[in-house]
Amino acid sequence: MIRDALQGVRRFEAFRTGLGIAHNVLADRLTRLCAAGILERRRYQRKPDRYEYLLTGKGRDLWPVVMSLLLWGDKYLAPDGPPVLVLHRGCGGRLTPALTCGDCRVPLGPHNVEVTSARPTFRETAGGSAEQEEPNPGP
Amino acid sequence: MIRDALQGVRRFEAFRTGLGIAHNVLADRLTRLCAAGILERRRYQRKPDRYEYLLTGKGRDLWPVVMSLLLWGDKYLAPDGPPVLVLHRGCGGRLTPALTCGDCRVPLGPHNVEVTSARPTFRETAGGSAEQEEPNPGP
Repeated sequence: MIRDALQGVRRFEAFRTGLGIAHNVLADRLTRLCAAGILERRRYQRKPDRYEYLLTGKGRDLWPVVMSLLLWGDKYLAPDGPPVLVLHRGCGGRLTPALTCGDCRVPLGPHNVEVTSARPTFRETAGGSAEQEEPNPGP
Repeated sequence: MIRDALQGVRRFEAFRTGLGIAHNVLADRLTRLCAAGILERRRYQRKPDRYEYLLTGKGRDLWPVVMSLLLWGDKYLAPDGPPVLVLHRGCGGRLTPALTCGDCRVPLGPHNVEVTSARPTFRETAGGSAEQEEPNPGP
């Protein structure tokens, strides 16, 4: 559903056709996605009132999540090849699932990152201690 | 659970402590993740037999999915700031959620990609036709 919205789907019937789900199931999901701040409902017609559903910034920011899941599915769950290709409009290259370092742009993975606690623990706040938990014990 | 496995957790009790879930719920999830080919079960001790759960290649490739969801959560669901930081061991830079073009490495998003069908439609196979559906109508 978020994937469809990311591809420009806005209206109830278009979501329903694309997803092939029942009217009440779709209505419930749209309500929940609006409540979660991922979609917003906007009236585009009066008498009768009709509404469309637009992604918020919070919804649009799910793009990397949805796309990396799509690329993973292409690799492992699509024996006949990927159903769609996601291509860079500029050069025609394909989207890759690699996330990168925000500073040096190197591709990152479990092998070259360190996951550390971002918050001081109670003991650290109270003056530091050798007893604090290791935030990320390696394998 | 996959997130914990990606951070090096392998053993039943370590998963249970980290997730705070019931024994039977965890056992069921481990079984399902093994059946899906995301984890594999390996005996590490005999008499009594004890097992650990290792990520397969298919499981490790979920790293970008899990990490981009984590970064999204940090941005929208963590008013007190992110609970953990994911840092590049090389330069100390932070992981960013941007996916890139596999050819030119430009950051990609909904604004600069084109989603096209990767498979010929029935009509195309049968000789082409103007009636074929547009794979990705814009907003």
